Amino acid sequence: MIILNGGSSSGKSGIVRCLQSELPDPWLAFGCDAFVDALPARMRESDAGIEIAADGRVRVGADFRTLEAAWTEGIAAMARAGARIVIDDVFLGGAASQRRWREAVGGLEVLWVGVRCDGAVAAGRELARGDRVRGMAASQADLVHRGVVYDLEVDTTHTEPLTSARTIAAHVTP
Amino acid sequence: MIILNGGSSSGKSGIVRCLQSELPDPWLAFGCDAFVDALPARMRESDAGIEIAADGRVRVGADFRTLEAAWTEGIAAMARAGARIVIDDVFLGGAASQRRWREAVGGLEVLWVGVRCDGAVAAGRELARGDRVRGMAASQADLVHRGVVYDLEVDTTHTEPLTSARTIAAHVTP
Amino acid sequence: MIILNGGSSSGKSGIVRCLQSELPDPWLAFGCDAFVDALPARMRESDAGIEIAADGRVRVGADFRTLEAAWTEGIAAMARAGARIVIDDVFLGGAASQRRWREAVGGLEVLWVGVRCDGAVAAGRELARGDRVRGMAASQADLVHRGVVYDLEVDTTHTEPLTSARTIAAHVTP
Amino acid sequence: MIILNGGSSSGKSGIVRCLQSELPDPWLAFGCDAFVDALPARMRESDAGIEIAADGRVRVGADFRTLEAAWTEGIAAMARAGARIVIDDVFLGGAASQRRWREAVGGLEVLWVGVRCDGAVAAGRELARGDRVRGMAASQADLVHRGVVYDLEVDTTHTEPLTSARTIAAHVTP
Repeated sequence: MIILNGGSSSGKSGIVRCLQSELPDPWLAFGCDAFVDALPARMRESDAGIEIAADGRVRVGADFRTLEAAWTEGIAAMARAGARIVIDDVFLGGAASQRRWREAVGGLEVLWVGVRCDGAVAAGRELARGDRVRGMAASQADLVHRGVVYDLEVDTTHTEPLTSARTIAAHVTP
Repeated sequence: MIILNGGSSSGKSGIVRCLQSELPDPWLAFGCDAFVDALPARMRESDAGIEIAADGRVRVGADFRTLEAAWTEGIAAMARAGARIVIDDVFLGGAASQRRWREAVGGLEVLWVGVRCDGAVAAGRELARGDRVRGMAASQADLVHRGVVYDLEVDTTHTEPLTSARTIAAHVTP
Repeated sequence: MIILNGGSSSGKSGIVRCLQSELPDPWLAFGCDAFVDALPARMRESDAGIEIAADGRVRVGADFRTLEAAWTEGIAAMARAGARIVIDDVFLGGAASQRRWREAVGGLEVLWVGVRCDGAVAAGRELARGDRVRGMAASQADLVHRGVVYDLEVDTTHTEPLTSARTIAAHVTP
Repeated sequence: MIILNGGSSSGKSGIVRCLQSELPDPWLAFGCDAFVDALPARMRESDAGIEIAADGRVRVGADFRTLEAAWTEGIAAMARAGARIVIDDVFLGGAASQRRWREAVGGLEVLWVGVRCDGAVAAGRELARGDRVRGMAASQADLVHRGVVYDLEVDTTHTEPLTSARTIAAHVTP
């Protein structure tokens, strides 16, 4: 497994698509966006689910945590069943988020990758995308990396997604 | 778990969203579309992956089957970890597809739901959606139900998605 | 020109795609959704632009009206330049909205089509789509037709989009 | 009016969204993608419409040209009716494409902007986006600028969309 962690609009999805293209074996890609899409619509706007404040800060509730834990377990089970899996996530809880993944993926070989991006640059890209609540990029840029330990870090501030993907691919055991 | 099976444009996704809204507990929804989105782009157009012919017929290759089996295992693991899960799938292999799911979900309580729709009506809706290769609806309408055994069937030819969802919800053990 | 008017989730877009398929000549399709997409992001959430209340009611401001008038003029100019054009709109102002279009399209041959749908059925479809603010379908179902005069009306409550499209196509002068 | 011309995946859309945010007045944004979306589905795959070869090269037919001419006239009419408009286009015909726009916008004040991007970098971004036929970025990178005359050029190879937008905004007469 490869687990990428980075703030909103740091360029994770683009790196993942390039990684899937560069790696010779087929890798399945899942992200926290796909998990949020799987939730009932009402949980994307409520206290028990996920709530995005006007300034872009994200809060998640107890029901969200419970379902997320089951989702994480299931992804680990897919890997144990033989699938190569690349995850892009936003560790809103920093080190605590990494610990939750570590417990789920126990025994599996994981490459931990930090995806950094200067907060102001990420905020500009958020504006350019036009499909994200403004403020998420800036508020998450540093927050998600607090206390997290990586095997490898890439910085997308001045680096293209394909270049970052090739750096990561070079660390994947064939 | 609830597993819905039906052809393309039979209205599964709409029923799933209504189900998530009608059921008091939070249910995670996953579908074969989400699985296909997780594949590398090259596998959506190749023999080893998925191939959609000009007439809408779908063929899947060996790599697809291997990853799909791991995905199915992982979804079952999410359910075992405590998540309520509703699946919408297209059993291209009919009874063989159901058998694959049965093996993965062994021991879990599953409600099997057939989503029927008249082929001509589904073809009209495929045209109205505008985002699907034409011919899939017609070619899958009967094919996917061959030899499949259900707890419950709904027919969307003359029934609204919310009505079908309420019929299904009434069969879910609280 | 063909101008369709109906509430949110009444099925206009599906009818338009079927119309484009059924009519032998190529028709360009534009809708109020495309106009809203052309606005600056900040106008989709502000008093001067468009505002969608929690109950799904839509209010538009002065800047919106000014740009909308220019957009309407431009669409009429496309038709005068020889393009066949089908519009799907939501006449939030009822008869006043129709008057605005009438002034812009003066001299052009227009087929006015009302797209009706029972409010409760449209609300169910809104839920099934999952990409609209809830309440829009119910609040607009009757409102948009007040005082509007049509050449033709279709009702999507019990009729498929392709069938409605064929009814409309039969009224188009070849 | 502002007319941006650049190859696929050169970053035009992102610049446009940033421009709409940076400019104090409301500007409507239209692009060749919106025009293609307005076409009947069958024209997106046929000789009379638009055809994208396996290597990403784009060919357009006679019906496409006719409708495009009417669309261009209509956009110019919107500007004459008082709307501020920013266009992002791909001048597949180079100087000939610019001439077609010049004829339509006669008399209007236009800022012509070239959006350059190194072909290899654009190809990498095309891969990262994952929603474009591969090869379009590389085949269009230089082609679309042949013989075109600009008031201003930006190069997105090493420059963020927001920065390019600010450069352009500084040239807009208040």
